[in-house]
Amino acid sequence: MEITSETHSQHISRQFNQELEALKTHLMTMGGLVEQQVQEAIQALLEGDSRLAEKVRDRDRDVNAMQLRIDDECTRVLARRQPAASDLRLVLAVIRATADLERIGDEASKIARNALTLIDNGNNVRGLVEVRHISEHVRRMLRDALTAFARFDTELALRVVHEDESVDDEYGSAMRSLMTFMMEDSRAIGPVLNVMWILRALERVGDHADNLAEYVIYLVKGLDIRHMDTDQLDEEALTRKE
Amino acid sequence: MEITSETHSQHISRQFNQELEALKTHLMTMGGLVEQQVQEAIQALLEGDSRLAEKVRDRDRDVNAMQLRIDDECTRVLARRQPAASDLRLVLAVIRATADLERIGDEASKIARNALTLIDNGNNVRGLVEVRHISEHVRRMLRDALTAFARFDTELALRVVHEDESVDDEYGSAMRSLMTFMMEDSRAIGPVLNVMWILRALERVGDHADNLAEYVIYLVKGLDIRHMDTDQLDEEALTRKE
Repeated sequence: MEITSETHSQHISRQFNQELEALKTHLMTMGGLVEQQVQEAIQALLEGDSRLAEKVRDRDRDVNAMQLRIDDECTRVLARRQPAASDLRLVLAVIRATADLERIGDEASKIARNALTLIDNGNNVRGLVEVRHISEHVRRMLRDALTAFARFDTELALRVVHEDESVDDEYGSAMRSLMTFMMEDSRAIGPVLNVMWILRALERVGDHADNLAEYVIYLVKGLDIRHMDTDQLDEEALTRKE
Repeated sequence: MEITSETHSQHISRQFNQELEALKTHLMTMGGLVEQQVQEAIQALLEGDSRLAEKVRDRDRDVNAMQLRIDDECTRVLARRQPAASDLRLVLAVIRATADLERIGDEASKIARNALTLIDNGNNVRGLVEVRHISEHVRRMLRDALTAFARFDTELALRVVHEDESVDDEYGSAMRSLMTFMMEDSRAIGPVLNVMWILRALERVGDHADNLAEYVIYLVKGLDIRHMDTDQLDEEALTRKE
């Protein structure tokens, strides 16, 4: 069979599409791993399971290794394929997204380390109701942000951005309760601080999920909504043509 | 004058070099602004200057706007010039670096907001000695990381990476002192928590400076040292040919 220049370029472009798909798949695999890390870190805390907490802490290495691999893949795609327009935006969004996923991994590992301290000291910990509640909220945000990325779903992405505000409110009120516990009983200060660090880590997970959602909008609409007010954002994102 | 293809390509390549230089210059300008933000946030705290704290808080918008502008510039360079090898690494390093600088800006703004709370409540705050000490340390790290970027100086970058470990130690010991203050006087819990958030923010600034230093090594050596042990790192970075 004669290879015409057209079939050759179709072949190249099919390969290129496969490479872009592979990038997305690998990002989703990394996303799945960090979701599991957050879930198991919280489970370890709530069930007082120190072996699970150690597992989460140690598995952070795998998350880091995944980031390096995917970033490397992105760099190779940029160098060889020199993508433009929406393909370029996809590769850049993947690079940004791996950085956020890696940091979510760090936060999961921090949660696990604080859980270990609490378990080791056999503390009767207060504030776990708040932790459970906020952790469910941010885990849902993270799942939705990843789904939005996988499906290029900007509406779902916008919902995640709005959710982040309510997580911030819940976080503020949980912190105030914890401060009260400290004032009531000074022996509780150490363990309550550990719970505060855990809440702070969860709040950061919410921020990173929010970032992921913003990349989806950048990716699909070519619109960089980082640092926009959310009111401004709805209007911009919904009125702009795709 | 006849334009030969060679002079034409020299012309293109000179323009391209100018664009890369401009990227670096803009990154340095952004770096200078966030350095100032951190410095003034701490100054506002130590001098009880609420107007300065408000200025820092409000100027975070400028930092965010700068990040978007530089990222946009990077995207255009990637799309039009399709850089390879070390030029591609420079553009990617600038994209990563703006994300870290933006986050340092966020931390400066958090410091300013906590300073405002402390100043408004007229608290006689403990722990400021620790804050001053650690802030000097991380500000030096940030300055060195930016200098290392400007000069492509990997030795200076490696020193920054090592500094980060000693900041982490100082941070740990400062947090323990602050916990003691809380236990001694439960009325101090609120203000001491504000000081803890400030210390945490400074520690994060140190982490971001460490990231910046790692990008310099990636940039110059083509070696991604994120997530490497520091022992392993010296050997790798120093024995590898440029």
